[in-house]
Amino acid sequence: MSQPDDVRPLLYLDDLTVGQRFASNGTYRLEAEDIVAFARAYDPQPFHLDADAAKATIFGGLAASGWQTAAITMRLTVESNLPLAGGFVGGGGEIIWPSPTRPGDVLRVRSEILDVRVSRSKPDRGVVTFRTETLNQRDEIVQVFTCQVVVPRRPS
Amino acid sequence: MSQPDDVRPLLYLDDLTVGQRFASNGTYRLEAEDIVAFARAYDPQPFHLDADAAKATIFGGLAASGWQTAAITMRLTVESNLPLAGGFVGGGGEIIWPSPTRPGDVLRVRSEILDVRVSRSKPDRGVVTFRTETLNQRDEIVQVFTCQVVVPRRPS
Repeated sequence: MSQPDDVRPLLYLDDLTVGQRFASNGTYRLEAEDIVAFARAYDPQPFHLDADAAKATIFGGLAASGWQTAAITMRLTVESNLPLAGGFVGGGGEIIWPSPTRPGDVLRVRSEILDVRVSRSKPDRGVVTFRTETLNQRDEIVQVFTCQVVVPRRPS
Repeated sequence: MSQPDDVRPLLYLDDLTVGQRFASNGTYRLEAEDIVAFARAYDPQPFHLDADAAKATIFGGLAASGWQTAAITMRLTVESNLPLAGGFVGGGGEIIWPSPTRPGDVLRVRSEILDVRVSRSKPDRGVVTFRTETLNQRDEIVQVFTCQVVVPRRPS
């Protein structure tokens, strides 16, 4: 669970176990102009670009690109109380967006370790499976990312 | 396959079949400063922020956040010859990053339809499964995203 960063050493594969939970230190408030700026750069579709045009779409109003929700989740994860040795290096995973992210939403993340295994081909590291949920200020889940992260073993 | 946008009408669920292939119209060249700017905003880790610091990491040099590769893939997809009615509204999918994206890489995407099915609960729409590969200028695959996209049926 959440504890101050400064009392926690780097975490190696050997320190991680199934069921451990982590949470973001802070939150991320997403404004309409951030949604539009991201969309202009990476996802230029009407429901991400323009509040009026978005009304007639499946979203019924301005919504963030799912990739912006994913990127914010990454930022909250990097800033979380989970100082992985080697950093967060994801090989991939499964992502779902159960609800859209809207202007003014305040996001936070919580993660749980689902699996820990040592690499057979590279015994100095392993793969940890995290389930990371991103929630808004109403505790609605806006993203679930189940991901495999490469984590080094503690040097002997 | 790739054809000019202006000769292609909007595509509804009824127009899509398993095995259809699509490709991005253009390419996206990613510069080192874009990698660093994205990382500062969303993924502030040494291997995405600083070429020197990145040398000592698992990447061995500056590499883009996987989420930036995903976001660029979205942009190339939106600009591709696949004018889906209703736009690209992804409910989620599986993402993998087989190789990192590096400064100077020139990315493109190609997609194939793996599945098409009408929604049971909402018969005015359906879900199409795409496999979208993102490739660099050496034809190395830097991302595979297998995603479910909501597509409306043609209005009767």
